[in-house]
Amino acid sequence: MIKIGITHGDINGVGYEVIIKLLEDNRILELMTPVVYGSAKLIAQYCKLLGKPNLPINQIKDADEARGGMINVVNVVGEDVKAEPGTTSEAAGKAAVAALAACVSDVKEGKIDAMVTAPINKSAVQSEEFHFPGHTEYLGEATQGNPLMILFNSAMRIALVTTHLPISRIAEEITEEVIVEKLRAFNESLKKDFGIVKPRIAVLSLNPHAGDNGLLGKEEEEIIAPAISKASDERIYCFGPYAADGFFGSGQYKKFDGILAMYHDQGLAPFKTVAMDSGVNFTAGLPIVRTSPDHGTAFDIAGRGEASEESLREAVYAAIDIARNRESHAERNANPLRRQYFDKSKDNVVLDLSKED
Amino acid sequence: MIKIGITHGDINGVGYEVIIKLLEDNRILELMTPVVYGSAKLIAQYCKLLGKPNLPINQIKDADEARGGMINVVNVVGEDVKAEPGTTSEAAGKAAVAALAACVSDVKEGKIDAMVTAPINKSAVQSEEFHFPGHTEYLGEATQGNPLMILFNSAMRIALVTTHLPISRIAEEITEEVIVEKLRAFNESLKKDFGIVKPRIAVLSLNPHAGDNGLLGKEEEEIIAPAISKASDERIYCFGPYAADGFFGSGQYKKFDGILAMYHDQGLAPFKTVAMDSGVNFTAGLPIVRTSPDHGTAFDIAGRGEASEESLREAVYAAIDIARNRESHAERNANPLRRQYFDKSKDNVVLDLSKED
Repeated sequence: MIKIGITHGDINGVGYEVIIKLLEDNRILELMTPVVYGSAKLIAQYCKLLGKPNLPINQIKDADEARGGMINVVNVVGEDVKAEPGTTSEAAGKAAVAALAACVSDVKEGKIDAMVTAPINKSAVQSEEFHFPGHTEYLGEATQGNPLMILFNSAMRIALVTTHLPISRIAEEITEEVIVEKLRAFNESLKKDFGIVKPRIAVLSLNPHAGDNGLLGKEEEEIIAPAISKASDERIYCFGPYAADGFFGSGQYKKFDGILAMYHDQGLAPFKTVAMDSGVNFTAGLPIVRTSPDHGTAFDIAGRGEASEESLREAVYAAIDIARNRESHAERNANPLRRQYFDKSKDNVVLDLSKED
Repeated sequence: MIKIGITHGDINGVGYEVIIKLLEDNRILELMTPVVYGSAKLIAQYCKLLGKPNLPINQIKDADEARGGMINVVNVVGEDVKAEPGTTSEAAGKAAVAALAACVSDVKEGKIDAMVTAPINKSAVQSEEFHFPGHTEYLGEATQGNPLMILFNSAMRIALVTTHLPISRIAEEITEEVIVEKLRAFNESLKKDFGIVKPRIAVLSLNPHAGDNGLLGKEEEEIIAPAISKASDERIYCFGPYAADGFFGSGQYKKFDGILAMYHDQGLAPFKTVAMDSGVNFTAGLPIVRTSPDHGTAFDIAGRGEASEESLREAVYAAIDIARNRESHAERNANPLRRQYFDKSKDNVVLDLSKED
């Protein structure tokens, strides 16, 4: 059975609520063995708060001890840590980082097959150990990967060229090299993680109306179009640049396997408008598999039992699928037939073994 | 019967197709009297192209002659002008500007009650007479108004602080004054044009995650929040700033009468994702009423009869509604009762007529 690590995130956010709502339905245990990085005490506290019976849990010291059919919990915080739903605190930030560190270490060692992270509070976690704008960047460093943020649901997959940047700095970060690099990573992930043999990628424009032939900005002509053409030369099927509003409004997004947006709100606002509770955030480009729900800590409704576990459930399903896709892709491509070049210019067709792929 | 002027837009785009599809259904003539600013010849050419019977039209020299129950056409181009669907041409640009100029002049003189514009091609129209990024700016100058672009359908109304600007220039154009001014105009329009007595307006943030407490940009704290507070002091019900992705994803947009977005794609990409074919573009802040469909010339499908007339129909309905709302708002507020101030600090309550509102 596949083992999925789940970090508790910020203990004062909606993390525990959605984890409890997810795991109280036994059927999830038939799909995977969960290993929660958190605290049995906190689970009990939240079950009481929500008026639910306590979850039957299996406390373990190490993910190796995780047993199928049970809710395994690795304690990462002391017995004295208590949740205060809706408040930002240093202790909650520390607890979030402890869970993350333990989970990443286990997934790197192969003790678990993939990880799903509950949301953290970006200001609470800031410390010497954690000095990143978010999970994505932390995991990039922790696994020495080149992370690419992909949001997806059944309707679309969106990757971002720039993620957490002020609007005033977006234009300067958009370069031909960065776009080509993101296209390569996106293409690779669509093949390896989503099992699409020849992915078609749409590239959005930076400026409104795709720059309107230069009237509203030159980046489309000078940066994005050349990047698309360069990536096409590398046999990546990419098209565009498309104006974002028309692209989503006309339903064109349904024709592509992936959409590369230039910045956060351009991609995420339309995505979330369509995705509602079902969106999943996946960090591609890492040696490990990590997904997360697409919502935040939601301090305003924390502790009330109102948060929907739907996005977390989708994130768990996605982690299972991606881990399996990656495995079978590796299997299929482990021992490829060698490409064979023929010189067809003459009558006598001869295999030239001196050329390498 | 209310008279609605309809300009033909770029004669090589989908303008004529959607106008023909709109007017061939007789029932529209029971709601309004149309005055098309275009050419009887071009209508005939497109009817033939689409394999439809020619429309029964009433050619007139002046909008004053328009008759109810008929499709009135004011010829604005010579007999020799022919359409070549899907191509950009100077002649098509000139024809578009001629229709626009005639229509604006008539609506200003009160010969027609409102105008609906079919899409133009922004490069084809550029000339000495027309040197604007679009209709909105042209009409601002032609009517000496202070235009505010509002997009709406049955689900939401979105206004934009900045419209046709490259991404690299957005941040510098966002100032407290501009936001307050747009909030005033939006509030006024929601009351006067949409008949909402006390409109609630949501203001979106500029940066992702609403700047994340300054980590991702300072504009929320330094510009947008003060602008909201200043507008609130003027008794405008406005709230925010809200991060765009969560705002649309959580369905929060349904709780507001209007949404003020900071830039084009932020507002329009989610709007069009939801609106599909039903979106209407309305230029508020002008002494005249002008609406338009929210699509462009769509050269790629022009002449094929594939374009949907739904958005144009909604634009016509909206023009009728807004013209009537404006009239009845003016009527209701023409002769208001004087506000009366009482000094309630003492026992003897006395009307103090020395104070003015």
